[in-house]
Amino acid sequence: MSKPAATNLRIDPERLWGDLMETAKIGGTAKGGICRLTLTDLDRQVRDWFKAAAESLGCTVTIDDMGAMFARRPGQRNDIPPIAMGSHLDTQPTGGKFDGALGVLAALEALRTLHRAGYETFAPIEVVNWTNEEGSRFTPAMIASGVFGGAFDRDWAMARTDRAGVSFADALDGIGYRGPQRCGEHPLSAFFEVHIEQGPNLEAENKDIGVVTGIQAIRWYEATFVGQDSHAGTTPMHRRHDALLGASRLVQAINAAALNHPGAVGTCGLLEVKPGSPNVIPGEVFMTIDLRDPREGALDQMAQEIAAEAEAIGDELGLQIALKNILTQPAVHFDPSCIASVRAAAAASGFSTKDLMSGAGHDSAYVARVAPTTMIFVPCKDGISHNEIEYSSKEQCAAGAQVLLQAVLDYDRKLAETSR
Amino acid sequence: MSKPAATNLRIDPERLWGDLMETAKIGGTAKGGICRLTLTDLDRQVRDWFKAAAESLGCTVTIDDMGAMFARRPGQRNDIPPIAMGSHLDTQPTGGKFDGALGVLAALEALRTLHRAGYETFAPIEVVNWTNEEGSRFTPAMIASGVFGGAFDRDWAMARTDRAGVSFADALDGIGYRGPQRCGEHPLSAFFEVHIEQGPNLEAENKDIGVVTGIQAIRWYEATFVGQDSHAGTTPMHRRHDALLGASRLVQAINAAALNHPGAVGTCGLLEVKPGSPNVIPGEVFMTIDLRDPREGALDQMAQEIAAEAEAIGDELGLQIALKNILTQPAVHFDPSCIASVRAAAAASGFSTKDLMSGAGHDSAYVARVAPTTMIFVPCKDGISHNEIEYSSKEQCAAGAQVLLQAVLDYDRKLAETSR
Repeated sequence: MSKPAATNLRIDPERLWGDLMETAKIGGTAKGGICRLTLTDLDRQVRDWFKAAAESLGCTVTIDDMGAMFARRPGQRNDIPPIAMGSHLDTQPTGGKFDGALGVLAALEALRTLHRAGYETFAPIEVVNWTNEEGSRFTPAMIASGVFGGAFDRDWAMARTDRAGVSFADALDGIGYRGPQRCGEHPLSAFFEVHIEQGPNLEAENKDIGVVTGIQAIRWYEATFVGQDSHAGTTPMHRRHDALLGASRLVQAINAAALNHPGAVGTCGLLEVKPGSPNVIPGEVFMTIDLRDPREGALDQMAQEIAAEAEAIGDELGLQIALKNILTQPAVHFDPSCIASVRAAAAASGFSTKDLMSGAGHDSAYVARVAPTTMIFVPCKDGISHNEIEYSSKEQCAAGAQVLLQAVLDYDRKLAETSR
Repeated sequence: MSKPAATNLRIDPERLWGDLMETAKIGGTAKGGICRLTLTDLDRQVRDWFKAAAESLGCTVTIDDMGAMFARRPGQRNDIPPIAMGSHLDTQPTGGKFDGALGVLAALEALRTLHRAGYETFAPIEVVNWTNEEGSRFTPAMIASGVFGGAFDRDWAMARTDRAGVSFADALDGIGYRGPQRCGEHPLSAFFEVHIEQGPNLEAENKDIGVVTGIQAIRWYEATFVGQDSHAGTTPMHRRHDALLGASRLVQAINAAALNHPGAVGTCGLLEVKPGSPNVIPGEVFMTIDLRDPREGALDQMAQEIAAEAEAIGDELGLQIALKNILTQPAVHFDPSCIASVRAAAAASGFSTKDLMSGAGHDSAYVARVAPTTMIFVPCKDGISHNEIEYSSKEQCAAGAQVLLQAVLDYDRKLAETSR
């Protein structure tokens, strides 16, 4: 088989954009976003599309028992683990067209480019679609890559339920995507993930490519406030135990804690009030807390500040407050050799770069525990994501895919050298 | 027909308690409360029970086109409007056994006592069940008595929808309780309503009966906060437009405004967050505001304080905030002659009394616009209501029914004197 020079290989921006727009119709919303929650029938549809597309390129698709999909293109040495690329195809309830989808479709386009060129890699190449990265339907987020990387127990993950009480396992069986391979028993030589930055930095500094050196630490908590629901018109202010009054103070405290630690972020994204009637003082509130910072120490302090305020609120308003840590994800530092391949690829293509830490959690955070891993960021408009107006241009997406292809080929060359 | 002395008539505490406990099974909850939202099939069941019970006492039941039910017992002079007693049979989502039900069932027991004694009143006597007093399913509250009293337009009321989009008219037809009589075309000589206090005052001062001189003014508002939903991990604090951060500040402001005006109350009972995902900054929040005080001026000031804070929040956080007044109910002052009959009845029965203004809105607030009206309060445990643990004792309920019976007979005597 003739072997063209790797550096001449170019992904096709139009083809990649076409895949992005076509798959965006699956769960497409009126406002131009996507609502494609994990393990729904819409997720099944996009998985079927991905499987067919990969098979049309001669790939073999294997699926593990957490629903993760691996589309494999053979290399010269099929006895060594593949170099994998990918991300996720599930979205937020009001998600955009690029978060996750770009990482899978850029990988598919990179593989397609190798296929069309008849380029034979040293290692096998795989495109991966991870299940439930978003965590909108099942918490925690990144549940499949988490099991893959050994962060979560498989049976515990299988038993997680959505707010309707449906378990992850049942939802997985429901769309027919529980595969035979045990999750985690799928060694990788390396993993590369293209993703939109989901932040404002690349756009602000007018850089083409983000060289991602790691991911900041993440903590998730659930807080439940229990007071007493009573009549809004007849219960004097001094006799109230208003769960929402307490919860609203904690929302303020989360914001204050983040502001106390420059660089950190703190968010309450979900808050539910019971019984939820205009003339009834709320007796119960459930809320989530999301804290992130590259520094574990800052997170410890933020968590302490929030817990202290929760205790003060409980004492002052006569509320029972339960604060539970449901996710602790340490800061991740990506593999130097993978990062070097990304730098080399960006330089070879003449793209400007900026080093940064990811503000968002990604499947790469868990994959990095079991394989050399890094990420490639592209700018997104106004740094907005998890929003239907999320946008990256055709050129920005293409740059990410081109750097992905060249980085994988660079890593493949290094693998060949060290293996010979 | 022999005519026993009115003052010898005694309601039967056991019978009244039996009716309360029997009807409490319709929509009864595990925690001992009632969930019987207006115009549901459970509401139909309790309406059917009430209709059958009234007819077994020889009453004729007429229903108006807002679903209000009038069970009539003839008097000597059936050409003059009836003296009516009653309240409502619908409940909050987590309501108790006494709010509303006591007023209807005490009236039924009073009428039953007249029936058993063969006592002939001068005016006809009616027991009324008003539709949607609670306002939990359809806003505003007290919608049928509101139309009856001319506060609301009938067609507007018919078109009100619940949060599932079902209109009041369709729900009314759905349970078969849209009657032929046009709401409001049903003159009353007077209206008396027994109700639990839903506040702590009678219990705190160990009084048997509350002589209700009026109802404090009520204002309801809806607030919508629109910011921008974006990724919780990657959006720096200074670039956020967090609708929930703004809404939580307004919850604090509502509480502060109420505390600024001693005697006033202010509540946010319903708050909904969109999109509602742990790692998405909320882009939209909807909330309700309930303000009450006997003084209109205090309400004006509270509303101004809250509106000013909403504007400050909008400017500070870059949010669009819409604040809409959806209900304005002026303070009500009940009829002196009706109040005098309640005082006389309580004195005749040897019950201790306290004059007070109602903290809650009641159907009597609107009925008072078109007929001489007052209310009779009985204590409830810890002043708690709109709660499954809401409780008044058998003796307390009986005292209310006995004073109701004697007040109606006292008013009937006055009516007879002035009419002869």
